[in-house]
Amino acid sequence: MTTRRFVPHIAALPHLVPFVGPEAMERARGRPFRARLGANESSFGPSPKAVAAMRDAALENWKYSDPENYDLTSAIATYLGVPASHIMIGEGIDGLLGLTCMMFVAPGDAVVTTDGAYPTFNFHVIAHGGRLIRLPMRADREDLMTLLDTARRERAKLIYVSNPNSPMGTWWTGDEIARMIAALPPETVLVLDEAYADTAPAGTAPPLDVANPNVIRYRTFSKAYGLAGARIGYAIASRDVIETFDKVRNHYGINRVGQIGAYHAIQDQAYLASAVAAVDRARRRISDLASSNGLTAIASAASFVAIDCGRDGAFAKSVLDGLLARDVFVRKPAASGIDRCIRVSCGVDTDLDVFADEFPRALAAARTAL
Amino acid sequence: MTTRRFVPHIAALPHLVPFVGPEAMERARGRPFRARLGANESSFGPSPKAVAAMRDAALENWKYSDPENYDLTSAIATYLGVPASHIMIGEGIDGLLGLTCMMFVAPGDAVVTTDGAYPTFNFHVIAHGGRLIRLPMRADREDLMTLLDTARRERAKLIYVSNPNSPMGTWWTGDEIARMIAALPPETVLVLDEAYADTAPAGTAPPLDVANPNVIRYRTFSKAYGLAGARIGYAIASRDVIETFDKVRNHYGINRVGQIGAYHAIQDQAYLASAVAAVDRARRRISDLASSNGLTAIASAASFVAIDCGRDGAFAKSVLDGLLARDVFVRKPAASGIDRCIRVSCGVDTDLDVFADEFPRALAAARTAL
Repeated sequence: MTTRRFVPHIAALPHLVPFVGPEAMERARGRPFRARLGANESSFGPSPKAVAAMRDAALENWKYSDPENYDLTSAIATYLGVPASHIMIGEGIDGLLGLTCMMFVAPGDAVVTTDGAYPTFNFHVIAHGGRLIRLPMRADREDLMTLLDTARRERAKLIYVSNPNSPMGTWWTGDEIARMIAALPPETVLVLDEAYADTAPAGTAPPLDVANPNVIRYRTFSKAYGLAGARIGYAIASRDVIETFDKVRNHYGINRVGQIGAYHAIQDQAYLASAVAAVDRARRRISDLASSNGLTAIASAASFVAIDCGRDGAFAKSVLDGLLARDVFVRKPAASGIDRCIRVSCGVDTDLDVFADEFPRALAAARTAL
Repeated sequence: MTTRRFVPHIAALPHLVPFVGPEAMERARGRPFRARLGANESSFGPSPKAVAAMRDAALENWKYSDPENYDLTSAIATYLGVPASHIMIGEGIDGLLGLTCMMFVAPGDAVVTTDGAYPTFNFHVIAHGGRLIRLPMRADREDLMTLLDTARRERAKLIYVSNPNSPMGTWWTGDEIARMIAALPPETVLVLDEAYADTAPAGTAPPLDVANPNVIRYRTFSKAYGLAGARIGYAIASRDVIETFDKVRNHYGINRVGQIGAYHAIQDQAYLASAVAAVDRARRRISDLASSNGLTAIASAASFVAIDCGRDGAFAKSVLDGLLARDVFVRKPAASGIDRCIRVSCGVDTDLDVFADEFPRALAAARTAL
C-alpha cells in the first residue's frame, strides 16, 4: 500500500488528535467519570425552550435542514444588530476554522499563533500545509503586539487570538483588541475566537465592525448556550469572507435538530443570563477551592478556571492524572509556562462536589509522588 | 475590498449552490409546499426507536458527541461485517466528499465524472481546484468503461460513480461495478456513491473489499434510514484512506443527536425493511402515475423515480415549473439528454396524492404553453 495517491502535503501529515474525548478515556479506563469538567461543556444545559424544540424536531429529522440556515442566521443577525449577510453558520467554530484555513492558507503560507493556544486551529492549519509559527504566551495571555510584529515580518495570512483566552481564561479588553485590529497588516486576517465571549465582562468583545475584511470573529452555541452536542458555531465577517465561506462550505452540513435548538436558544436571552450567572458562581467556587487548597486560580472570563498548581508541569500533570484516576474528567494546558495549571470547567454543583472531594487527595498524592 | 487575501484558486471560484433547499423556495414563493417530494428525503421517517433515542438525547445535548463516533462506527462495522478501522463517519456523504477532494485533489488534478451526476461532488472538486472532466450519460446511466478510459488517459485522481444512479435511479449490477473496479488505473480512486444502496435489488452493491486502496464507498442515513436532518454518512475504505480522513476531518463535526439516532437506526433492520418496502410501493405508484398520464418512468433502484416527460428539456422544465407553481416540490435533471425527465421522491401517500392530482394539470399546462 502506498500514500502516493494523496495530495503531497496531506500524505505527509502527522496523525494528530487535538482533543481525546472523555468517552474514549472512559473506554480506555473501563469505567465512567463521576464528574465531567474537562471539555468546557455547560452542564447547566441549554434553554428549556431549546430542549423542547429539539425534542419536537427529532420527529421531523427525516427532512434535511435548511441549507441557508435562514431562520438561525436571521435570529443571530437580529441579536447582534448586523445584517445577516455578515453571518455564516458552521459545524461549530472548529468547522469554520477548517474552512478559514482552506480559504486563506496555501501550502507554505505563514500563520501565527501562540504556543498552547487552540490546538484544533493548528490542526487545520497543518492540514492545509500552512507554516505554523507559535509564539510564547506572556503573562498567561496571547501577546498581541508580538503576534502582530511576527505576522508583519512573516507576511502571515492569519493570526489566531482567543479572547477570552483558552486554555487560561484570561482576557484582553475590547479596547486592546481594537488597537490590535487597527494595526493589522493589510494581508493578514485576524482569526478572533470569541467562543467564551458570553461569559466575559462587558466590553471584552470590541464593537462589531463587519466592514473590516481583515477580521473574522467566531462565536458558538457550545459554551454558555449549553449546546455543545449541536455543533453550531458562527462567524461574523465582511461580505467577501462570508461569500467565500459559501463557496467552500458543505451546504447541508448543519443538522436540523441543532439548527432548531440554536434558533430557540439565542432568542432566550433570559435563560442565557441565568446560565452565565451559574457559570460565574461556579468560577467563584472553583477559585475558592483553589484557595482552600493553598493554590491560586487564574482570574477567568471563560466558563472554566485554570488553577495554578504551584509547581512545574510535571507536578500539574501528576495532579491531573490523580484526578482522572479518581474519576474526575478535567484537562490541563500542555505548553511550557502554562503547563503548571490544570483547567476545570464550570459545571453543576454535583460535579464540583466530586472535584472538591478529590482535588485535595490528588494534590496530596502528587506531592507524595514527586 | 479585495479578494487577494484568499488562496488563488479559492478567490477564482464561482458562486455555486448545488441544491437550493425547499425552504428557500418557500420563502421566495411566499407559501409552503403541499408535497415535499424533491430532495429524496424519506417522509416514511426513521425508526421509532431512533426517534425515541433522539428525543432523549435532546436533553443531553450540552455534551459534545464522542469524536471517535465509537458506538456508531462499531454498529456499522458489525452490520457490514468489516473491521471498524475501515469505517469513517462524516457530516453526510457531502461532508465526506469534501474531505475526499481535500485528500486527493490538488489544483489542476483531473477528476472524471458524468454530466448530470451529483453536483455537490463537482462543487467540492472545483473548490479544491480540480480539473473536472464530465462525460455524457449513456442510456441514462454513468458510462463505466468510458469513465475508466478517460481516467487512464487523464491520469485522473478520482472517478465518481453513483450506484444506484442519482438523478435517474438506474443501476449497474454488482458484477459490473466489480469489473470496473478491477480495471481501475493504479493512480485512480473510485468514489462509489451508494447513497441509494439500501433500496436497490440484492447484488447491486458488489461485495465489500476493504483492502482495496482504490475504492471508497459512501453510504448514508439520509435516504432509506429517514435521517436526512441528522447529517450522518459514512465511508468504507482501506485503512490508509480512513486514517487520512482522520488527519483532516473536523473531529467534533458530528452532532450528538444525529450520532445517537443513526446508532439506533442501523440496529433496527426490521424497520429499515419496512421503510424499503414503503419506498418500493411508492416507486410503483409513481411509475403507475407516469403510465396513467401517458408517460414512461425510468425503472428505479433508488428512493425516487425519474419520469420521462416525453419531449425535450424545455418541456420537462415547464412541467416542473407547473408542479412547483401548484405547490409540489420536485426536482429535475438539468444535463442534456436526461433533462427530459422530472424526478419524484418516494414519499407518503398524502404527498403522492397531491402529486397525482397536480401532475396531469401541470402536464396539460405545459402542453398548452409549448
